[in-house]
Amino acid sequence: MNVPSRIDELEVGFDVPAKPGMDQTDIQTPCLILDLDALERNIAKMGDYARTHGMRHRVHGKMHKSVDVAKLQESLGGAVGVCCQKVSEAEVFARGGIKEVLVSNQVRDPLKIDRLSRIPKLGARTICCVDDKANVAELSAAAQKHGTGIECLVEIDCGAGRCGVSTTPQVVEIAKAIDAAPGLKFSGIQAYQGAIQHLVRYDQRKARIDVAVAMVKEAVYALKAEGLECDIVAGGGTGSYPFESTSGVFNELQCGSYAFMDADYGRILDKNGNRIDQGEWENALFILTSVMSHARPDQAICDAGLKTQSVDSGLPFIFGRDDVKYVSCSDEHGVIADPSNVLKINEKLRLVPGHCDPTCNLHDWYVGVRNGQVETLWPVSARGKAY
Amino acid sequence: MNVPSRIDELEVGFDVPAKPGMDQTDIQTPCLILDLDALERNIAKMGDYARTHGMRHRVHGKMHKSVDVAKLQESLGGAVGVCCQKVSEAEVFARGGIKEVLVSNQVRDPLKIDRLSRIPKLGARTICCVDDKANVAELSAAAQKHGTGIECLVEIDCGAGRCGVSTTPQVVEIAKAIDAAPGLKFSGIQAYQGAIQHLVRYDQRKARIDVAVAMVKEAVYALKAEGLECDIVAGGGTGSYPFESTSGVFNELQCGSYAFMDADYGRILDKNGNRIDQGEWENALFILTSVMSHARPDQAICDAGLKTQSVDSGLPFIFGRDDVKYVSCSDEHGVIADPSNVLKINEKLRLVPGHCDPTCNLHDWYVGVRNGQVETLWPVSARGKAY
Repeated sequence: MNVPSRIDELEVGFDVPAKPGMDQTDIQTPCLILDLDALERNIAKMGDYARTHGMRHRVHGKMHKSVDVAKLQESLGGAVGVCCQKVSEAEVFARGGIKEVLVSNQVRDPLKIDRLSRIPKLGARTICCVDDKANVAELSAAAQKHGTGIECLVEIDCGAGRCGVSTTPQVVEIAKAIDAAPGLKFSGIQAYQGAIQHLVRYDQRKARIDVAVAMVKEAVYALKAEGLECDIVAGGGTGSYPFESTSGVFNELQCGSYAFMDADYGRILDKNGNRIDQGEWENALFILTSVMSHARPDQAICDAGLKTQSVDSGLPFIFGRDDVKYVSCSDEHGVIADPSNVLKINEKLRLVPGHCDPTCNLHDWYVGVRNGQVETLWPVSARGKAY
Repeated sequence: MNVPSRIDELEVGFDVPAKPGMDQTDIQTPCLILDLDALERNIAKMGDYARTHGMRHRVHGKMHKSVDVAKLQESLGGAVGVCCQKVSEAEVFARGGIKEVLVSNQVRDPLKIDRLSRIPKLGARTICCVDDKANVAELSAAAQKHGTGIECLVEIDCGAGRCGVSTTPQVVEIAKAIDAAPGLKFSGIQAYQGAIQHLVRYDQRKARIDVAVAMVKEAVYALKAEGLECDIVAGGGTGSYPFESTSGVFNELQCGSYAFMDADYGRILDKNGNRIDQGEWENALFILTSVMSHARPDQAICDAGLKTQSVDSGLPFIFGRDDVKYVSCSDEHGVIADPSNVLKINEKLRLVPGHCDPTCNLHDWYVGVRNGQVETLWPVSARGKAY
């Protein structure tokens, strides 16, 4: 059990949705619950996969924003540390004792650069991405000012269409600038293909990663020709890790959602044509919700709406039930079709959210359950850490 | 200025996006900013409207979740108190000194009922809604246990299709049960038509509210015939308040979004066919975001994605700019079409979010700005208070 010391002072209902030792039927809703058995199996399974494929796994902490989950991924899944997307998240993970933190993103604001350059003082290996040569001098000045070192990866846009450079000459130019900059170390390449992770068909995803792999190989060879070795060649998400890990060029994975799963990821198909939430990964994250009104016989209203979940990737589904269906939501309410009028007031349901990352970011606590009991509460340590 | 005393201990960037006195160009992004002049004008205008139409205004605190904004709505807009949707929100507002709190929702969980019945001890008039006769005994028992009083409104489903009863006999039956229950007081009717607030055309919204008004009138007259007077007949949102306030039966408004505005509400038309954000209400709420990558000449990437805003009602627009456009987003990034390559790294933009309520619920702070300076920081007091 890993419970914050101040938890005894917190009030169930106002501050926290539950306390350890409570029967799960008494949890206050809506809140996030973690099936700890399923979570541990997912984490161990991905750890085994990475190990047997000779890959490091730098788990994506932006998904869960939890120091406790990250530490479980280290201890049980052999993770080498975390990635995250914001300097404030990196600060939370480093303060929480994570020893390697990669900001898999650009850092351009002067104060953010200054904060990033101080993270090594917290005891963490600190890595960030660069896609603009002008950023190199800014990072170098801050690292020198604080007497620390920042490692830099050149980010390649391998199809996601967000940050990152698109050509090998650009990669080499920035890498050489990093290599020459005091206080910085050129450590390799970031090439995450975020746009294809949710394509339903396995072969579609593979084809798009083949393109990314070709770009990355070209860059790695060009860097080698300049005498620049890549300690880290990083990428791969829950929808693509089989491809990066057998590419012969990537050496690190950055998977996040595999640990919790969600409705949108669950729909994608593995190489045998099965949904990945039907064997590859288990649903470990749920929104626990209660029925709060049943004024119409064929429709129940639950207490989980837009403030409890992000619906950017679609509505949640109700776990383990095919007799009732979550059909729409507004700010505070979910509408559940209940054609046979089976739901009772205060009945609790487990929703699998459409998209785990922004859903987790709405909540302050994970309630860890096992065998029908609340075993632990974990804070969503970096919730709201957006800057 | 209304700054929490502990603000001096907080670190800009990690804990807070800014501090009072700072130039607004130094605010850390992404974060929520409030144009205090625009906010005050919106609040005063709605206050004047309610007063001249003989309506009380019980402002909807679920939108902003801020004790500070609610107090401004009391002092500047004559609000009688707040509505909110959750017991935990009601606790925050009552602890913060708001003297009248209406939970405009059903409260069914036993612990939540217990907590609701203790709110009067905080000094707040406490009101909730009922749509099921079985709830009356539960509320009554809790109010008696704690020696307090809860006022109850019968909720009518006047078209929103969520909570609420649909027939006058049901209204009367529940009202009589409330009236007879020790510890409870029957105080009137809740009839908010949430489904029509965002219909674009004024006459469409009016036609749907005419139906609601007819239902409410029938119920009020039937209650009167039973000797039950309605102290409160409540409803009306930013899209419908002109109709409830001239209905002859409603006596309270429950508007929320008018104070901040958002992109989705801004699109609806007033009676002259003008967008309501072009004269009726001003945009007072913005997401401040920074350009963080411009690796392609025609596309900039900013730091505001799905963890900074809710996109359930569409993407944000960039305030005051027609040369650049926010075109898509992922968890941490926004993609901005910049066809003329005018945006610079670290340039700040003001986004008007698609939907204010769930967007505000993502953030810990409002940064209040006036004349180019940070004047105040207000906590989003009830952020995440979902249970």
